[in-house]
Amino acid sequence: MGAQRLVVIGGDAAGMSAASQARKRRGPDELTIVAFERGRYTSYSACGIPYWISGAVEDMDKLVSRTPEKHRDNGIDMRTRTEVIAIDVAARTVRARDLDGGREYDEPYDDLVYATGSVPARPPVPGIDAAGVYGVQTLDDGAALRAELDGGHVQHVVIIGGGYIGLEVAEACQVRGLDVTVVDRSATPVGTFDPDVGEFIADAVRNMGVKLVMSDGVAEIETGADGQAVAVHTASGRRLPADLVVLGLGVRPNVALAREAGIPLGPSGGIAVDHRMRTQAEGVWAAGDCVESIHRLSGQRVVVALGTHANKQGRVAGINLGGGYATFPGVIGTAITKVCDLEVARTGLSEREADEAGYRFVTAVVDSTTKAGYFPGAAQIRLKLIAEQRTGRLLGAQIVGREDAAKRIDVLATAIWNEMDVDEVLSLDLSYAPPFSPVWDPVLIAARKAFDAVDAEARSPDDQPG
Amino acid sequence: MGAQRLVVIGGDAAGMSAASQARKRRGPDELTIVAFERGRYTSYSACGIPYWISGAVEDMDKLVSRTPEKHRDNGIDMRTRTEVIAIDVAARTVRARDLDGGREYDEPYDDLVYATGSVPARPPVPGIDAAGVYGVQTLDDGAALRAELDGGHVQHVVIIGGGYIGLEVAEACQVRGLDVTVVDRSATPVGTFDPDVGEFIADAVRNMGVKLVMSDGVAEIETGADGQAVAVHTASGRRLPADLVVLGLGVRPNVALAREAGIPLGPSGGIAVDHRMRTQAEGVWAAGDCVESIHRLSGQRVVVALGTHANKQGRVAGINLGGGYATFPGVIGTAITKVCDLEVARTGLSEREADEAGYRFVTAVVDSTTKAGYFPGAAQIRLKLIAEQRTGRLLGAQIVGREDAAKRIDVLATAIWNEMDVDEVLSLDLSYAPPFSPVWDPVLIAARKAFDAVDAEARSPDDQPG
Repeated sequence: MGAQRLVVIGGDAAGMSAASQARKRRGPDELTIVAFERGRYTSYSACGIPYWISGAVEDMDKLVSRTPEKHRDNGIDMRTRTEVIAIDVAARTVRARDLDGGREYDEPYDDLVYATGSVPARPPVPGIDAAGVYGVQTLDDGAALRAELDGGHVQHVVIIGGGYIGLEVAEACQVRGLDVTVVDRSATPVGTFDPDVGEFIADAVRNMGVKLVMSDGVAEIETGADGQAVAVHTASGRRLPADLVVLGLGVRPNVALAREAGIPLGPSGGIAVDHRMRTQAEGVWAAGDCVESIHRLSGQRVVVALGTHANKQGRVAGINLGGGYATFPGVIGTAITKVCDLEVARTGLSEREADEAGYRFVTAVVDSTTKAGYFPGAAQIRLKLIAEQRTGRLLGAQIVGREDAAKRIDVLATAIWNEMDVDEVLSLDLSYAPPFSPVWDPVLIAARKAFDAVDAEARSPDDQPG
Repeated sequence: MGAQRLVVIGGDAAGMSAASQARKRRGPDELTIVAFERGRYTSYSACGIPYWISGAVEDMDKLVSRTPEKHRDNGIDMRTRTEVIAIDVAARTVRARDLDGGREYDEPYDDLVYATGSVPARPPVPGIDAAGVYGVQTLDDGAALRAELDGGHVQHVVIIGGGYIGLEVAEACQVRGLDVTVVDRSATPVGTFDPDVGEFIADAVRNMGVKLVMSDGVAEIETGADGQAVAVHTASGRRLPADLVVLGLGVRPNVALAREAGIPLGPSGGIAVDHRMRTQAEGVWAAGDCVESIHRLSGQRVVVALGTHANKQGRVAGINLGGGYATFPGVIGTAITKVCDLEVARTGLSEREADEAGYRFVTAVVDSTTKAGYFPGAAQIRLKLIAEQRTGRLLGAQIVGREDAAKRIDVLATAIWNEMDVDEVLSLDLSYAPPFSPVWDPVLIAARKAFDAVDAEARSPDDQPG
């Protein structure tokens, strides 16, 4: 019997982590690995694109952790600029098209890893497909966007969507000296934060000179005679001049191929997978931005497009299809970003999410410092905790602050992961020395205050007798 | 019936946290609070003393979080420069001496909080009590040490003991342009780290220009005709000139009073307390550096002198004696410090400690960066994990690195607290964005490698058949 065949669709984090893990466990005699990538690049950091656009990262190559050549050296038949245009799950073949040569051919598989990532959400408005409208999902996208900026004719940039990517690209363009406006339907940027935290983000964005048009949507993208975008019209009737429009509305899982092939999707619209990253189609695995995950707090299926999950899920798929055993136990909604010198982070549920998940909760907000208050360089940090009524279980946390503030979210993420109560969190043996924290670390102060809130609520008369 | 009487011995973190919590729960009509402090200062950061000595903190007052006057405003009868010289647990009185006036008097109590802190370990060598030999436990100690340095006649400083405090004071003196030598019996500084990590600390100390005399003890302190220390003689026969000698050998719990009063000590030499911080003497509570705590991993009783525990324990004692309910659930040995620009931290058990506690374990060491590798300012970070054989339970972690490296120890401390296995740690939903971490956070990379080590060990032939 010949070698088994593994086909991977998608040459970035999830797909290539799976391929590498499988290769580690099965040599070329046992397993043939063919990987298809539509773009020119493999295994790169899409999250790093804004920093390459701004110039903070000088060389695009630095964003690439493993080139096609390196994958080939590792015994993977890596085919870039090759798009998979169909999957036949019954025949166990994929149909591939060479984007440069135009040749089409079938490739058989025993195991398939579906790792197509995500596509930017595109509002269904006139002009959305005009020249000058860019996504920033792939390194090819990023290269095109940067080439446009380097062309020197861009002066006005409008970013549609004030989420993480939207703000990161806004800052990058602002650093390049451009006139930047961000349009978003929410009242405050990064709508996954509660509005009280979002206000800090809004201030930071404005302070760096980026204009914010909030609580407003996009109605139309006006194009010039040459078909190039020239302005964005908002729902409220504003006209924002735009030589360049960036889609920062978040992403949708790239599931078109899977849907056509009959690989079942889940309620969230992502591909349904089990803990081992198996889809419901025989021999088909999936990982990364295109799949849905279990949110450990809400119990809901969610699609979270984030490189860290893509890497972990790809690893899990690769171990399993290589004959090992591994699981991906879900997500809790941890995220972090930096807006100028403002750091923000979140984990668990926001107030709105906790509400939707049916939790009753109390909140606590504290202001503290990242180092001992008297220590040079001590920076502001504000923490907000959300804790379940009665039990005191920590449900969510948000941090906003300056240098060294936001990474503390990981402690709270680990506490939430372990279903800790705020009462126990405040007892945690966290590190202390004046250059690193006040004697009560801000995390502990917040837990103490949340505990007091849980305690006070428990003592208050029950508003629902009976 | 009149107000109950609470007497507190010790006006720093533990004692005054207890007093403040009790005051919060019981007003002056219900509870009279008298607090005795031998020194001039209350509620200060002893950990901040080195930074005041170096000049990083300009004003000593900044180290004081609550002055005696503030405590008095809060309804606490705060008596500074007053030493408690005896406790009569049968009669429920303490004997106090006014250090300035000389007056002695008895003070009755219903509840007593014993929070006398620690005293520096003093090697029993000739000359140890000479003028010019300083501890750095109290703000009065710090003020005396700084006055000596400000006097301008000090040129050579010898620090006995290369632990946290020893190195912090060494750096402070070095910053002041002095000739500094650290003497320690261990092979590497901060002996609570494994030697492989300790080597990095040794290099950092030497690189800043501080001399290290390791694997050597102190035999004698030579004094001049005026009784002032002039040199330190080591066990190996070296003579180190010293205008100033600092005791950095760590501390002993200050339990002399308790021992005389018959308040039972535990096996570690600290005062024995239960989870609510009650001693075995009726009406006597204790908290802070003078008590012993349960180490949650070794199961042993240990004395850990650290402001963060003192504050938590004082809070617990104060809540309980104020009629509430709170517990202190123990420690896991978390510590952090900075040597020049080198950050080091630890939590859980070191290899030696794990061995002594009877664990069998594997270790994993990884080198990574604090931000995405391509991101400007990405700094080195090395993590070492210790995981139990077979189960994979995380037992200990050590970090050494540059800017933003060490505080990540808190994630591992939280994981250890929750008895997580490295397999689950590597799945944690930790925050990721290029300015904050690589896509696999160093903590996750280390957990992945530790998991591999656990896995490899489990597959190896059992060396103890039968």
